[in-house]
Amino acid sequence: MTGHNSRFLKACRGEEVDCTPVWFMRQAGRYMEEYRKLRQDHTLLEICANPELAQEVTLQPMRRFDLDAAIIFADILLPLKSMGVDFDFTKGEGPKIRQPIRSPQDVAQLHVGDPEEDLRSVFEAIGLVSSSLDSEKALIGFAGAPFTVASYMIEGSYSRNFLHTKLMMYTHPAAWQKLMGTIVEVTVRYLSAQIEAGAQVIQLFDSWVGCLDPEDYRQYVLPYSKEIFDRLQTFSVPLIHFGTGTATFLDLMNQAGPTVMGVDWKTSMSKVSDGFEGDVPIQGNLDPLALLAPRDCLEKKVDRVLEDAKGCPSHIFNLGHGILPQTPVENVEAVVTWVHDRTRR
Amino acid sequence: MTGHNSRFLKACRGEEVDCTPVWFMRQAGRYMEEYRKLRQDHTLLEICANPELAQEVTLQPMRRFDLDAAIIFADILLPLKSMGVDFDFTKGEGPKIRQPIRSPQDVAQLHVGDPEEDLRSVFEAIGLVSSSLDSEKALIGFAGAPFTVASYMIEGSYSRNFLHTKLMMYTHPAAWQKLMGTIVEVTVRYLSAQIEAGAQVIQLFDSWVGCLDPEDYRQYVLPYSKEIFDRLQTFSVPLIHFGTGTATFLDLMNQAGPTVMGVDWKTSMSKVSDGFEGDVPIQGNLDPLALLAPRDCLEKKVDRVLEDAKGCPSHIFNLGHGILPQTPVENVEAVVTWVHDRTRR
Repeated sequence: MTGHNSRFLKACRGEEVDCTPVWFMRQAGRYMEEYRKLRQDHTLLEICANPELAQEVTLQPMRRFDLDAAIIFADILLPLKSMGVDFDFTKGEGPKIRQPIRSPQDVAQLHVGDPEEDLRSVFEAIGLVSSSLDSEKALIGFAGAPFTVASYMIEGSYSRNFLHTKLMMYTHPAAWQKLMGTIVEVTVRYLSAQIEAGAQVIQLFDSWVGCLDPEDYRQYVLPYSKEIFDRLQTFSVPLIHFGTGTATFLDLMNQAGPTVMGVDWKTSMSKVSDGFEGDVPIQGNLDPLALLAPRDCLEKKVDRVLEDAKGCPSHIFNLGHGILPQTPVENVEAVVTWVHDRTRR
Repeated sequence: MTGHNSRFLKACRGEEVDCTPVWFMRQAGRYMEEYRKLRQDHTLLEICANPELAQEVTLQPMRRFDLDAAIIFADILLPLKSMGVDFDFTKGEGPKIRQPIRSPQDVAQLHVGDPEEDLRSVFEAIGLVSSSLDSEKALIGFAGAPFTVASYMIEGSYSRNFLHTKLMMYTHPAAWQKLMGTIVEVTVRYLSAQIEAGAQVIQLFDSWVGCLDPEDYRQYVLPYSKEIFDRLQTFSVPLIHFGTGTATFLDLMNQAGPTVMGVDWKTSMSKVSDGFEGDVPIQGNLDPLALLAPRDCLEKKVDRVLEDAKGCPSHIFNLGHGILPQTPVENVEAVVTWVHDRTRR
């Protein structure tokens, strides 16, 4: 059973820790042989739908590395099920929405289903992981932030310029509002149920919001992300807000009300931290590509992150985005050890 | 014949102007019917290789809109010819390098050819445009910055994470240095010949450098971009430095030594300008997507850019990246008129 005084949770709360906690976005994934082997027999969605398999994949990196937190294995598109939007994963190309949401008529057909029932396998997987995880480790639940989920629903797949998403915002503001409101509703219920099932921390991923200018973020996104954080306050679990390419509006992302701000590798964590009112713990921010670099180069980059973090009130070590499939496991192992050893008080 | 006291050149030099000059990156392109018609009979590379066609395409937007500058029609990959690297454009997918540069051995085979001869069609096109352009208008020459050109050569096409490029930097620093040095040499000769042919302003496009963290920019990119700007100083023409996603190292990009800094739409121009030593004219920064928005939304966004620009010592209106093929020409026309009218002194 997971405990409430793990190193990770303490760092999220800004309390003193014996050393800096570390986890990696996408720490369960294709760079691990164990995962690739399991994927030979099961699709990504099959794993998500099967609590035992999801538990197994969630725990694979925990067995191999001395990570301080597990993150439940799931996909940010799963809640689309509860809005009546069908999707799949195509080999090598990532997610594909079968009928992208492109018009107010499309938005009108969305509904808030029964997330507690539709997404039951995720909550069951959380329950299984929670009861098997060491008490020194934390369990993270997560969801995509409303903008990122909306942009997937609208674009239908990865986009370089988010043309359809921005056009929906600019051309059909009422439909945008309804779409974002629907996503908020489903997401709050999805995350609440994750917490009730045993998630001790929540991370909201706004992976694609960096395509916006700060004013668009303020107008079209902030109110919705803020509503999610506001409504989750009742649970008193740490909430992490993460985006990439958002250097020019991190202050607005922080205004949404998370406990911890996650930042990408292009940002100085100490400068970011200086810009916030109050003491906001910072999570980040090694370039995922650095894990593929020669050992001496990687080491220098890790040390630079740790040095930068000294200017933050509290630090959780992570990458600035998800781990890449080409990453050597030995490098992941080395980084975990370095971070713990070099920050030991 | 182009004059040396056009509104555009004055703004680049920080001199007083009657109203804010305006041009658009990719202002000659697929959003224009005239261009699409010409493309039915000629490939992009055919146009680049034919000075009369390149002149025609360069002038198409000048006839249609009251733009303050023409930019010579060319592609940032053209100088690859002078390094022995073969490439083409595939329909819908953009540029493809036939044999990407992936190893020190690949780099060793590069050479500095004879840019003045290999790229003669570009200089001839500049000569033609220069002699036919109204004296109130300026003529811009350009090249890709070393990082962006190197990343195309290494990745072979558009990349999301620039894996091979960063691995070359981290794993083979000597090969990286040689590659960047080769690109610098060709680029300086390419741009010098453009200026000698009649280009009055030069823009260096570092479109993909936003994938780096500031420290990597400082170490692996800045010295090479700086060398280009340093060596072009001899011509006394304004030099514009442009990148996207570079909000956290605009100060370093400015240290490379341009006359004008171009910024993307995620950045506040007045804040950027405040951060620079001395008075650096700023170019930017409407989101290209805004040109597809309903008129009232577009108008608001243009006004916001103009308001923000009041904090800059001198302003050149532009987009924050290239114009999109889906852009309605009426909106382009409206923006040019608004910018001129609303900034008239």
